[in-house]
Amino acid sequence: MVQGLFLAVEGIDGSGKSGIVGQLAAHLRRQGREVVTTREPGGTHEGEALRALLLSGADDAWDPMAELLLMTAARVQHVRRVIAPALARGAAVVSDRFVGSTLAYQGTGRGLSEPFIRQLHAQAVGDLWPDLTLILDLDAATGLARSRRRLGDAALDEGRFESLDLAFHERIRAAFLAQAARDPARHTVIDASGRPDQVCALALAALDRLTG
Amino acid sequence: MVQGLFLAVEGIDGSGKSGIVGQLAAHLRRQGREVVTTREPGGTHEGEALRALLLSGADDAWDPMAELLLMTAARVQHVRRVIAPALARGAAVVSDRFVGSTLAYQGTGRGLSEPFIRQLHAQAVGDLWPDLTLILDLDAATGLARSRRRLGDAALDEGRFESLDLAFHERIRAAFLAQAARDPARHTVIDASGRPDQVCALALAALDRLTG
Repeated sequence: MVQGLFLAVEGIDGSGKSGIVGQLAAHLRRQGREVVTTREPGGTHEGEALRALLLSGADDAWDPMAELLLMTAARVQHVRRVIAPALARGAAVVSDRFVGSTLAYQGTGRGLSEPFIRQLHAQAVGDLWPDLTLILDLDAATGLARSRRRLGDAALDEGRFESLDLAFHERIRAAFLAQAARDPARHTVIDASGRPDQVCALALAALDRLTG
Repeated sequence: MVQGLFLAVEGIDGSGKSGIVGQLAAHLRRQGREVVTTREPGGTHEGEALRALLLSGADDAWDPMAELLLMTAARVQHVRRVIAPALARGAAVVSDRFVGSTLAYQGTGRGLSEPFIRQLHAQAVGDLWPDLTLILDLDAATGLARSRRRLGDAALDEGRFESLDLAFHERIRAAFLAQAARDPARHTVIDASGRPDQVCALALAALDRLTG
């Protein structure tokens, strides 16, 4: 039986994650694999309800610790109901964001303890980590400009995380790069500043190095 | 300055918690205290949204671990935004359910590790425990019958927790009694099988022993 394969795509807003998720999935399907694409926060009916709750309201509506617990609750549902069953039957799972985003946004961004986040992940979620995390690396100003073009300025104002300032997003970017430096075997940093086809080629090459 | 006072009222459904919360608050107000009455899950705008999310849907909609994390997230909001500020200004806080319910329902009821729940409470919520928890003790059949009378059978079906069976509620009752046995200095078990005025007299006597 085929071994399950778990890929996560991480990066700041506007780094092109959802496009790359689609390209990775298409590439794996061309190889005859079953592929499940998903996203966080969300990925289940209950998780999507939590996502809506988290992304609405003012920046400071949720205490950072409460935000971490909600993200982790959504991840528990996601892993147990979607990701683990898919991996168990040999599928490839490609997730737009996973625990790396929690470490970056709630850890570095909101100032919660990274060891606590890792311990909570291990105890609550069951210590499942992606086989490979692709980090789409982009400076925050370019990411924000791309988000703005995609969403329009008015829509952007409604996105709570995207309304935070450039300095915040630069800290998130640095947090993702630090994750890759800490565990290079399970992370690949992709230069996401180029044209979509260039970024895609880099991502598929990283996948082929893993599976080839 | 007056010292803050934190009371929790626990017990199975139909044990009369909300009535006792009101009586305790009225008694404390007659003594000239500021009193904040609140409830869990809920107690804040965000917490009430989580309560609605948890109490809707099928019995198995939420993984037990996700349920624990949501309850704890709601409690973080509740403690930091409502309970801790009230205690800091010397108010008395009377909460309809608190961490005792999580230990009973998610621990004993859903089979999650009680040490993990206590550790999560300590790390996420900040290890705030009530000065006194009143446990309204009642056999599950009587509790369910009282709930039915209050809600009507049709409404009862909508209450996810109340739809669980009698044996489950007996296990919850035993869990509350075990909490009292483990820490008798901070728990008082009240016989809730009598008339409302009898139960009220027992609850006010327990409060007077604490504050007198």
